[in-house]
Amino acid sequence: MIRAEIPTPALLLDLDAFDANVTTMTRCVAAHGKGLRPHAKTHKCPEIARRLVRAGAAGACTAKLGEAEVFAAHDVRGLLVTTAIVGEAKAARAAALAHLAPDTIVVADDVHQVGLLDRAAGHAGARLRVAVDLYFGRTGVAPGAPALAVAQAIAAAPHLEFAGLQAYDATASHTFGAEARRARSTATMGEAVATRSLLEAHGIPCPMVSAGSTGSYRVDAAIDGLTELQPGSFIFMDTDYLRIGGPDGEAAYDDFRPALSVVTTVVSVHGDEAIVDGGYKSFATDRPFAPLPVDRPDLVYGWAGDEHGRLDMRRATRRLAVGDRLEFRAPHCDPTVNLYDEIHALRGDDVEAVWTIAARGKSQ
Amino acid sequence: MIRAEIPTPALLLDLDAFDANVTTMTRCVAAHGKGLRPHAKTHKCPEIARRLVRAGAAGACTAKLGEAEVFAAHDVRGLLVTTAIVGEAKAARAAALAHLAPDTIVVADDVHQVGLLDRAAGHAGARLRVAVDLYFGRTGVAPGAPALAVAQAIAAAPHLEFAGLQAYDATASHTFGAEARRARSTATMGEAVATRSLLEAHGIPCPMVSAGSTGSYRVDAAIDGLTELQPGSFIFMDTDYLRIGGPDGEAAYDDFRPALSVVTTVVSVHGDEAIVDGGYKSFATDRPFAPLPVDRPDLVYGWAGDEHGRLDMRRATRRLAVGDRLEFRAPHCDPTVNLYDEIHALRGDDVEAVWTIAARGKSQ
Repeated sequence: MIRAEIPTPALLLDLDAFDANVTTMTRCVAAHGKGLRPHAKTHKCPEIARRLVRAGAAGACTAKLGEAEVFAAHDVRGLLVTTAIVGEAKAARAAALAHLAPDTIVVADDVHQVGLLDRAAGHAGARLRVAVDLYFGRTGVAPGAPALAVAQAIAAAPHLEFAGLQAYDATASHTFGAEARRARSTATMGEAVATRSLLEAHGIPCPMVSAGSTGSYRVDAAIDGLTELQPGSFIFMDTDYLRIGGPDGEAAYDDFRPALSVVTTVVSVHGDEAIVDGGYKSFATDRPFAPLPVDRPDLVYGWAGDEHGRLDMRRATRRLAVGDRLEFRAPHCDPTVNLYDEIHALRGDDVEAVWTIAARGKSQ
Repeated sequence: MIRAEIPTPALLLDLDAFDANVTTMTRCVAAHGKGLRPHAKTHKCPEIARRLVRAGAAGACTAKLGEAEVFAAHDVRGLLVTTAIVGEAKAARAAALAHLAPDTIVVADDVHQVGLLDRAAGHAGARLRVAVDLYFGRTGVAPGAPALAVAQAIAAAPHLEFAGLQAYDATASHTFGAEARRARSTATMGEAVATRSLLEAHGIPCPMVSAGSTGSYRVDAAIDGLTELQPGSFIFMDTDYLRIGGPDGEAAYDDFRPALSVVTTVVSVHGDEAIVDGGYKSFATDRPFAPLPVDRPDLVYGWAGDEHGRLDMRRATRRLAVGDRLEFRAPHCDPTVNLYDEIHALRGDDVEAVWTIAARGKSQ
């Protein structure tokens, strides 16, 4: 199959750009002696996770237990589930997962949930690795003494093993301006590293401090005490990152190349408007900006419902006709990928492979 | 399974509300001697399509060929694909579908595409039923003479059969105020009915004029010359419709009951904020309003990323704790359903069934 034959709307991956992005990230973390556990919430695709592992990643983060179950079933190991496991039913599933993939790490931020995890692991005859999720504005327990209390509960639990700290700071990732981003990340990661020291001073070894993101990876890679980075978006490169400024103060953040696109077909034309076959069900809509036509700055996309987009051709240098194909950068990669069952991996215009997005929708 | 045991985030259907909505719609169209072909882009679920047929529907509309292929494979008949089939590959698939489900109708708005459909049907040895899609602001060909030209091309094509007109007017559905909505729908549907007369005056029988929506169904049901209605959202009832005003001038549009919700779990609590396990990947985000907590007007949801929502508890009459479950009305039902692989059908608090959303993501 070639690019022009892919049924639309469809998700495309430019393998050259993807490979370049992986090389940029793996070189950076290796140069700083850090590990890399890329966040698979971005791609939800076992083949991409395996490629990252072959490039040197220690495994994959997942946001949800349901995603981790899918990756484990596809032989991906080194899993870290980054959202706390809450409730008895999910604790039982986490224990079952530890049987299948014993190096899996889950996180907790609450002593009561630690108790549920311990009982579930006991019932399952499993030993479950649990890290403490640190709070930097969303989920987790506050760094310092509150985190120590949760770590002590894990270390004291007969069926659990304390695995370390998760120190993801969502705010650092999308802060505007290199200096502001560096200041934010340095401050919050300083608290994470201090918490690690506090734990070790209390006799709790802390083998992992997992942190970082596509927006802050260069800062985080250089911070002593963090052991690994867990960025996700760098493989595809969200257009949102183009707005936050480069790591060294450049206007644009161009460490990574856009690798993901959505291809559509023009299905109807009226005057200066062309309608394509991709709308709310083909692109994530959570950003305040619309899909961006690739190589066609003369066209402007507007939402036109669940299944349609409206291209404004008033400034078009070439008019669109019914049957024409048009590619777009999605406003936000992660939730866009979550709309598709497969991704077409392209080398130039050749479809080298079609990969299943096996963890799509596995939000439970 | 009971409601409290469903792993979160999950999609729930209140069967009592669903049944009441179906009864309201089927009674209205029956009273006016109209047919009903509910739009399955809303639910993408073969079991729901079958229930609607048992309640009197003539079949199901689908937005895309890929959805129709799934419904046909699940023995749903009376399919109408409401977006034009564009290109040779999709024309070939449409012809193959006509073999499996011969009463399927596809639409066209362009003479060139009619030629592609005819050649594809000829190659497949199929007879393909094709309706003309009329333009009321998005896709389609202009009513009157331009539509006649496309209908004549279909009628003259050796392997095609002219099936009628599709006259969906997206603008009428969401127009604010009963009188404005009535005026809009009466005007555009008047053009559709006049086009039907024009075709018949040119010797082209027009067995179907399919139109209407949840917002305009009462107006459309009373218009002579339309043969059937194709509403979708009435089964779930989008919160957006609460804003447009009732059909008889009431402030609220309450012909239909909200039947769809998303259940989440609180995973972390900090001060006056509780974090639930549903974000951009659990709710459609294309509306300018957020998920609405069911029976908890004292709580306000704010987006907190792909996997999380943030509940503001500053006015909470009861505080949330980790492990609590919270249900929401989605901002927009159709693209929310498209995020899930299954829907939990509840009778009270009992899960009566779990239905597969088999056409989820089948946008091609």
